[in-house]
Amino acid sequence: MHARLLGAPSRASACTSSSSFPSAGRHPCRASWKPRPPSRSSASPPPLSLLRAGASMEPASTEGQSDPTVHGVADRVVGVLGGGQLGKMLCQAASQMGIKVAILDPLKDCPANSVCHEHVVGSFNDGDAVREFAKRCDVLTVEIEHVDAVALEKLEKQGVVCEPKASTIAIIQDKYRQKGHFSKFGIPIADFVEVDTLSSIENAGEMFGYPLMVKSKRLAYDGRGNAVAHNKEELSSVVSSLGGFEHGLYVERWTPFAKELSVIVARSRDGCTVCYPVVETIHKDNICHVVEAPAQIPEKMKKLATSVAEKAIKSLEGAGVFAVELFLTNDNQALLNEVAPRPHNSGHHTIEACYTSQYEQHLRAILGLPLGDPAMKAPAAIMYNILGEDEGDSGFVLAHQLIKRALNIPGASVHWYAKPEIRKQRKMGHITIVGPSMFDVKAHLDRLLQRDTDGPKKVRPRAAVIMGSDSDLPIMKDAAAILEKFNIPFEV
Amino acid sequence: MHARLLGAPSRASACTSSSSFPSAGRHPCRASWKPRPPSRSSASPPPLSLLRAGASMEPASTEGQSDPTVHGVADRVVGVLGGGQLGKMLCQAASQMGIKVAILDPLKDCPANSVCHEHVVGSFNDGDAVREFAKRCDVLTVEIEHVDAVALEKLEKQGVVCEPKASTIAIIQDKYRQKGHFSKFGIPIADFVEVDTLSSIENAGEMFGYPLMVKSKRLAYDGRGNAVAHNKEELSSVVSSLGGFEHGLYVERWTPFAKELSVIVARSRDGCTVCYPVVETIHKDNICHVVEAPAQIPEKMKKLATSVAEKAIKSLEGAGVFAVELFLTNDNQALLNEVAPRPHNSGHHTIEACYTSQYEQHLRAILGLPLGDPAMKAPAAIMYNILGEDEGDSGFVLAHQLIKRALNIPGASVHWYAKPEIRKQRKMGHITIVGPSMFDVKAHLDRLLQRDTDGPKKVRPRAAVIMGSDSDLPIMKDAAAILEKFNIPFEV
Repeated sequence: MHARLLGAPSRASACTSSSSFPSAGRHPCRASWKPRPPSRSSASPPPLSLLRAGASMEPASTEGQSDPTVHGVADRVVGVLGGGQLGKMLCQAASQMGIKVAILDPLKDCPANSVCHEHVVGSFNDGDAVREFAKRCDVLTVEIEHVDAVALEKLEKQGVVCEPKASTIAIIQDKYRQKGHFSKFGIPIADFVEVDTLSSIENAGEMFGYPLMVKSKRLAYDGRGNAVAHNKEELSSVVSSLGGFEHGLYVERWTPFAKELSVIVARSRDGCTVCYPVVETIHKDNICHVVEAPAQIPEKMKKLATSVAEKAIKSLEGAGVFAVELFLTNDNQALLNEVAPRPHNSGHHTIEACYTSQYEQHLRAILGLPLGDPAMKAPAAIMYNILGEDEGDSGFVLAHQLIKRALNIPGASVHWYAKPEIRKQRKMGHITIVGPSMFDVKAHLDRLLQRDTDGPKKVRPRAAVIMGSDSDLPIMKDAAAILEKFNIPFEV
Repeated sequence: MHARLLGAPSRASACTSSSSFPSAGRHPCRASWKPRPPSRSSASPPPLSLLRAGASMEPASTEGQSDPTVHGVADRVVGVLGGGQLGKMLCQAASQMGIKVAILDPLKDCPANSVCHEHVVGSFNDGDAVREFAKRCDVLTVEIEHVDAVALEKLEKQGVVCEPKASTIAIIQDKYRQKGHFSKFGIPIADFVEVDTLSSIENAGEMFGYPLMVKSKRLAYDGRGNAVAHNKEELSSVVSSLGGFEHGLYVERWTPFAKELSVIVARSRDGCTVCYPVVETIHKDNICHVVEAPAQIPEKMKKLATSVAEKAIKSLEGAGVFAVELFLTNDNQALLNEVAPRPHNSGHHTIEACYTSQYEQHLRAILGLPLGDPAMKAPAAIMYNILGEDEGDSGFVLAHQLIKRALNIPGASVHWYAKPEIRKQRKMGHITIVGPSMFDVKAHLDRLLQRDTDGPKKVRPRAAVIMGSDSDLPIMKDAAAILEKFNIPFEV
């Protein structure tokens, strides 16, 4: 229980930390959120042939001009390639706003099926299926990047609105091409080189040293398509494990990192961007396991990570949310690891913890609506992935036991994707815990995971907390100075 | 923009205020949320005939006992009588948790249709339809109280699980019976008496004075079924306007009130209750127009309203969330006005502003799962109903203009129910604005409604805010004392 009689999580939480104001004299910083100018005209209307009966392509928010009759927020149909959990959560956000979403997914009982407006059963990798699907949609987007980008490019030329652009998806779905792209734009990344023969990979090993990260160019996710060679002798078996050189491989200099970070960046159709507060992602067996929001790193590092992420997204074409995964190195560099051109696992917590979730934000962005505020509305959140621990019934029983514990934890929200089958390491759902401080949500996570709390007790820092709005800063500083003088512990 | 470097909306926000700690020496109060005991066994399983293939009725959360194979949170099918916006939002909460909801509603394109697991087209007022519908559900609930309660009572006798109980719905759907029930249980309510002839209503007028509130016993909502007689002469026309005495009428003593309040109370299947923070409801033309959370009233009044609401709900049978509408009178009484046995318009804000929304809470309650934390996770919220301002296209254009302004307001979430037709005063959607203080969210509401802000400027109180957890209280008090001594303005 916490006592509190007035005060507020702040719009500025996007880039504030509990660190050193005012003693270190650092300026309070502002959220990365800049409201869009009220009027603009860059949203290009789709060809008439794609408009649905009764639908209309209103340009993004403009006051004073005569409105066509729009029912609700927008009555255009959003077509999503892919109907997994990301598609499902996109549909949930759309349902709240009364926006219709059609999905294209080969699985009849894919997660998004139960909540979309329409499910077309077909492959997002099949050009014909994508073309047919596009006819019933006013704007196309993706929840997975491994789609037929060539088909999308052709559709764009015919006037179909794709957000983000097919060019962006083509760049991102080939990780080697992605690295080349970001390198060209001066985004800091680990050294990398294409390898296509044993001698070329041996040369790379000599150049970058060992361990050496070997990666597939395409269809890589959740650590699949990555392998590590610890010495020259391991190279040939590692190459085989990734399907051989003909599969398309490259290598990366090993990056010893202090933390893995992620920044969700939203970009509107007129190119404005807003950034969500930097989060830390904690991986286990190469799969995202826990996300802590905001990341517990110095303000300076948050700003660095945010600026790298924003610059990376500005180098790509099209609207939507993008996840930028970064390494925070021991020498305080923020190196871009990879980008996803869609909502992302590292942004699930935004549903409960931020003013605008990444899913609503994606819909706003691709429909040319004003972007929402990405700041956190509660001070701290942790996302925990419910991964399959076993096959079949035993897996479901274990997942349900975890869920039952979560239902008893204050501030915990359970998401269950309702996938019909469970497999080891499969993402079956997630749990987001929101609370008044990172200390509290971590304690709740410990309880959720039944972690031994009999060890050395963590002691919650006890202090008064001073807070206020920007205009209160002079008074907050006065208060802080006096409390310091009287040795009253406080945080600002 | 607000600066904030550490701090937290508190679990105790359910019943804290910005008032008088520590100067008035009031004790910090605690949220009404009490976690349920981890083990209990009162959830009675439904008859086997009602179990769906693969579904199972697990008793409410128990650790250590062997689990039947439950997929996700619960794989029982929830049947909802009614598919309006409340049903839709119930389905949205269910979708997140992977819970299947079937709805019974006569309208093919009712709001819940797009997001429910299954929509049975039929009347919730038709006993046969309800009976047929019940066969595909594991637990029955309502999103409207004007359902066939007799059919529900019969189904209960056959072992169908209805939450809340048919007896509760029967009491509540007849407002005269409802008043009698609460009066019997000692809940403070305005004086009332049944009237069935002109002479009986004249006697009542003499007894209670004028203005006199005349009400229909049944099928009353959003002010329909209520009329005011300002003097004896008006009585007969008022009676006619309500359909005559044969319609079933009663009168109430006119209650001059300072504010209208609402408390959402959740009750689990084993009878535990949790209360959401008290909100103020502002009506216009008898329809809920704005909800302010938390209500800006003294702590003492919040406690009084909460205790009246809790007592009222404890007098009823069954699980679920209940909305208790109250009058706060000028002499500081909290009189119960009426109760809804379901999620309610005055709890829409809980989706964005509370740890557990009223919709998730209703599902938890009726399924025998542990209740969630009702406290606010952000300090302030305002809900604004999008009511039809006109028929047809013109109505849609006006609603869309409002929505476009909302999309530009930080912290505002737009809900659009996607009702196919618009009518004057029809609830088409709502907007919830969440923010760091009531001052801020009210300023945003002014912007949304384009209210003249050129008048006398409201000045935001400027002060440092001291906050912390319960264990920080001694330090917070020390800090407050010192700041007071040095004339630094602060709030706690």
